[in-house]
Amino acid sequence: MKQYKGWEGFIPGKWCNDEVNVRDFIQKNYTPYTGDDSFLAPATDATNKLWGEVLDLCNKERENNGVLDADTKIVSTLTSHGPGYIDKDLEKIVGFQTDAPLKRSLQPFGGIKMSSEALAMYGYEIDPEVKSIFTKYRKTHNDGVFDAYTPEMRAARSSHILTGLPDTYGRGRIIGDYRRVALYGIDYLIKKKEEDKSIINGEMTPDKIRDREEIAEQIKALKGLKAMAQSYGYDISEPATTAQEAIQAVYFGYLGAIKDQNGAAMSIGRTSTFLDIYIERDIKNGVITESEAQELMDHFVMKLRMVRFMRIQSYNELFSGDPTWVTESIGGMGVDGRPLVTKNSFRVLHTLVNLGPAPEPNLTVLWSKHLPDNFKKFCAKISIQTSAVQYESDDLMRPEMGDDYSIACCVSCMITGKDMQFFGARANLAKCLLYAINGGKDELMKDKVTGKPMQVGPKYIPITSDDALDFDEVMSKYDDMMTWLAGLYVNVLNLIHYMHDKYAYEAIEMALHDTKVRRFFATGIAGLSCVADSLSAIKYAKVYPIRNEEGIVTDFRIEGDFPKYGNNDDRVDELAVDLVKRFMKKIKSHYTYRESVPTMSILTITSNVVYGKKTGNTPDGRRAGEPLAPGANPMHGRDSHGALASLESVAKLPYEYARDGISNTFSITPASLGKED
Amino acid sequence: MKQYKGWEGFIPGKWCNDEVNVRDFIQKNYTPYTGDDSFLAPATDATNKLWGEVLDLCNKERENNGVLDADTKIVSTLTSHGPGYIDKDLEKIVGFQTDAPLKRSLQPFGGIKMSSEALAMYGYEIDPEVKSIFTKYRKTHNDGVFDAYTPEMRAARSSHILTGLPDTYGRGRIIGDYRRVALYGIDYLIKKKEEDKSIINGEMTPDKIRDREEIAEQIKALKGLKAMAQSYGYDISEPATTAQEAIQAVYFGYLGAIKDQNGAAMSIGRTSTFLDIYIERDIKNGVITESEAQELMDHFVMKLRMVRFMRIQSYNELFSGDPTWVTESIGGMGVDGRPLVTKNSFRVLHTLVNLGPAPEPNLTVLWSKHLPDNFKKFCAKISIQTSAVQYESDDLMRPEMGDDYSIACCVSCMITGKDMQFFGARANLAKCLLYAINGGKDELMKDKVTGKPMQVGPKYIPITSDDALDFDEVMSKYDDMMTWLAGLYVNVLNLIHYMHDKYAYEAIEMALHDTKVRRFFATGIAGLSCVADSLSAIKYAKVYPIRNEEGIVTDFRIEGDFPKYGNNDDRVDELAVDLVKRFMKKIKSHYTYRESVPTMSILTITSNVVYGKKTGNTPDGRRAGEPLAPGANPMHGRDSHGALASLESVAKLPYEYARDGISNTFSITPASLGKED
Repeated sequence: MKQYKGWEGFIPGKWCNDEVNVRDFIQKNYTPYTGDDSFLAPATDATNKLWGEVLDLCNKERENNGVLDADTKIVSTLTSHGPGYIDKDLEKIVGFQTDAPLKRSLQPFGGIKMSSEALAMYGYEIDPEVKSIFTKYRKTHNDGVFDAYTPEMRAARSSHILTGLPDTYGRGRIIGDYRRVALYGIDYLIKKKEEDKSIINGEMTPDKIRDREEIAEQIKALKGLKAMAQSYGYDISEPATTAQEAIQAVYFGYLGAIKDQNGAAMSIGRTSTFLDIYIERDIKNGVITESEAQELMDHFVMKLRMVRFMRIQSYNELFSGDPTWVTESIGGMGVDGRPLVTKNSFRVLHTLVNLGPAPEPNLTVLWSKHLPDNFKKFCAKISIQTSAVQYESDDLMRPEMGDDYSIACCVSCMITGKDMQFFGARANLAKCLLYAINGGKDELMKDKVTGKPMQVGPKYIPITSDDALDFDEVMSKYDDMMTWLAGLYVNVLNLIHYMHDKYAYEAIEMALHDTKVRRFFATGIAGLSCVADSLSAIKYAKVYPIRNEEGIVTDFRIEGDFPKYGNNDDRVDELAVDLVKRFMKKIKSHYTYRESVPTMSILTITSNVVYGKKTGNTPDGRRAGEPLAPGANPMHGRDSHGALASLESVAKLPYEYARDGISNTFSITPASLGKED
Repeated sequence: MKQYKGWEGFIPGKWCNDEVNVRDFIQKNYTPYTGDDSFLAPATDATNKLWGEVLDLCNKERENNGVLDADTKIVSTLTSHGPGYIDKDLEKIVGFQTDAPLKRSLQPFGGIKMSSEALAMYGYEIDPEVKSIFTKYRKTHNDGVFDAYTPEMRAARSSHILTGLPDTYGRGRIIGDYRRVALYGIDYLIKKKEEDKSIINGEMTPDKIRDREEIAEQIKALKGLKAMAQSYGYDISEPATTAQEAIQAVYFGYLGAIKDQNGAAMSIGRTSTFLDIYIERDIKNGVITESEAQELMDHFVMKLRMVRFMRIQSYNELFSGDPTWVTESIGGMGVDGRPLVTKNSFRVLHTLVNLGPAPEPNLTVLWSKHLPDNFKKFCAKISIQTSAVQYESDDLMRPEMGDDYSIACCVSCMITGKDMQFFGARANLAKCLLYAINGGKDELMKDKVTGKPMQVGPKYIPITSDDALDFDEVMSKYDDMMTWLAGLYVNVLNLIHYMHDKYAYEAIEMALHDTKVRRFFATGIAGLSCVADSLSAIKYAKVYPIRNEEGIVTDFRIEGDFPKYGNNDDRVDELAVDLVKRFMKKIKSHYTYRESVPTMSILTITSNVVYGKKTGNTPDGRRAGEPLAPGANPMHGRDSHGALASLESVAKLPYEYARDGISNTFSITPASLGKED
């Protein structure tokens, strides 16, 4: 074991005995905190001044149609840009994606068309030379995908039975373990990667060749990260020696990732308790005060609030804006029963007070009933004050994922640095039900050549009778159509992720993962409650199909009432549970790329609106174009038996079949939490 | 079946019934010719004038250190350059790799370092922008390979126990079926490729995704070829209607290949008998005269003589110059017993008279004892006159390959448009024998760090006794070392070909192959006769090892005489046969990339010199640095029992274990063939 200066004062363990093991470092060294929030410090003058300047920039950005400035020529890489500052003397944590704050970078590896289009949307023109290079010499992810797509895949994409496929930009939802940069320094990490590379030997199958090449790319990226830090005057080749260096190193790791990739969700991980160890050491040694510690966290969070990507119109529509999902996972319980709450868990939430509320970074509390009372109270207080905290059930995830997982995006949990995810958008199960009824013909889209309803799914026999729909007949057809959809969906994702690895590999993010990483193949579904209610209507009421002149069922007439999902009524809730299990089983029956583990999410926090737009009238009475419910939510207004009954319905969904997460968007007024603030 | 104008007058068959089948077209339509050469026409005035201009350019090229001009900025693609001419009005067949004759193109996809180095060698500087693009954005084949190489692979490459690996440029030895461009036109070929793509469906495994993407690239390349032809004023979307168009179309196909790739051997295939069908039709219809037919062939061959690539020093050393191996396969017998000799087989050889002798194109007669006597006589006559004809045994290859194979490079036969080859350089078996004796330590190379003999092979127990070498002990150790070498060799090639597909895929060449192509995994050996003689010396004489101060056996003292390979002496010839079988069996025991079929060649027409330079003293008495014998040749001067005995030894080598070809370089003076010319 080599003793680095940065490791002085830390309790040794496996983490410093020739391995990379951040969790072990945390467990050996962190100080749980059960006290209250009285220790917290307000924003310093420097923070206030700096944040004022940021707000000015953000105002200018808004005035300028949402984009302050954009690079049209320099292709973003780890070392493409010189350093950028807001106010160099005031910034305790430095680094921007380009050479100026809020100036968006040019990231064409995912797709040159997307880059050009996004720039054009804001009145910029991409440098013709760059466009030429990425057309003639450097193929992009997007071009690879479209070269290989089958006509069926393209049709399913156009009809939006599959939506949000990451085929034009970075796939996202991959969290580098940015803490490793601080704890180990780059040279140690390179050495470990070289060791990992050296043991991939024997028969050189394509998989092994690919793995060796990927590690080579990871090592190059680590060297690039070092050079990037150097440009800001930091040497990150060895472990961080102070809290400031540690926070800066973690941020540099993350900055490398967002310079390299423009994934939909570029989350930061689970850094606050890790960083607390450095802050505790510094405070103990008299290096910093509490006020200075808070200032470091405020400046760190300030930087995370300034992450920007160039997005196209359809992206913004899908996500109702331009979120970055810089999710930071806070708190949670250790598997040994100690809370992972530290003073720094308070500090990171306190940034919402010092800097004011903001949606990013997406501060996410890993909630457990065992969390210290004082922390629970503080979370409630900050939630009431800022409405800017997300909660996830640590008690649900910990048994599966241990105590060092992070949340990517909204709900996708992965063991930090050990798991990654092939992000997979969503299949629209409501539309699939209409395909089952119409024999694979789309209820909205016309074939461009014939002008007839577009045949997207297989030409299975449609429902031909005009009698009330028969539940068993519909279920049988729906099962067939879901079998088709699951197969197509998996194949589309296999293809997308193959091309992403080939043309836009996340070298720096994967350099901050174990080499033998577990990969999740993350599928998702939309329209769960709409389908559950539709099937319930067919089963418990009478639903008559209404056909247009071409014989396509485009509407339904419902006679009688039926149980609706969201009222703790097993008759319909079991239909929802069955759907989740059924679709996941179909997904699992297929080959998935790189031995990935199939998972599923029920998660459409915003994109349910777009999904609804592309879905015709459904048998539950929902009108064409109306939004589907978000995630696993009941359809809007149908949960008429109170909040608890609604939550009970959602809680029935089996997590083991939806391991990538289940979301339930639940609005409550502050008054619901108590009589007053 | 669509009737194209270009197909008028041809006998229909499978070839025009919704398939691509050039062989069937030839068989249905060609006119065997058994007459003599009296019909041949001399060069036309236009040919003489044009060829004079070419010779002037070639002289200028020689005066200018071997390179007339080189492109330093425009990256060569199918459509990168505008048209180029020598003397537009005189040229019946047009097209150059760049916009000027003999101006070398810039082909960095195989390796940017090679491109820069080659240009620098001739006093040119690569455009810094291009260098930057191919360093920062567009990874090359060479960079991919070196990212994935293991230290062992690099050591074996440095010590030259493996030499000539195609890891810095195009792999070559892939022959597009350029005749398809003439017979079918591009649109038909695109349609067929689209059909092929559409049936790759089902579970999207990486192999299928790759195949779909490759076909997409092939289709793009076909479109590019059409655009390239258009720039010369030719529409090749439909079948060629005249001999001139047919020859031009074939040449355009080939031109596309050499614009796209800089493989070591870019052969043209088997075109002359195919083209004869068009010439016959035109002559019959009074469209052209014999003189005009010869002029077309002369101009075609003139263009093939002007193929150039930018090469680096080590390439030129390996191949003793800068050959292009534009091999044209001529004659041979049909499986139905008819000779595939046509008047155009005479015409293509007659270009050696009309234009004078030249090494390129590499005119190769597929020799059979059943060839028409008049053709045999003509071949002999041209050989005597020009020393510029290569012969291959059609009788040996036809049973395996049928009657539409072509020779790539010198001896590698493949069914045209149906087979391709992963070119594999050579393993030095003589050096391997020294490794067996020295326990994997190189007899010449020192470790850069320790200064001790470099450990390249595995650390097997060396020969430690100073007694005369024991044959059984040496063979046992040699067998182990060959097992290691074969495994390493296959792995190196797997890696190289994986990267070549990834970074420098031959889209246009493969577009002119069947989609379901058979791939050969072409290994090769060097030093066969040297090892056979060495083992013979150890077995039949006494060979004492001589060690240097470090204990490495660096020389041998031989007591007594021993049988030498090349004298039809089974005692040693059987050692050679055993070596061939033994090494090939070891090669076959491994995984080979893309289900390729392992083959082996015994073929080092020029590179035996470089191999010898890197090989220490051998137990047969050969001195360090002296050349190995080329291919399967006996060691120089040791075949003391006459030419027939020498040939008998070579003929014992089992072709089924060396399917990629066995070469025997055999010099005879004209007088040996008869009393006078």
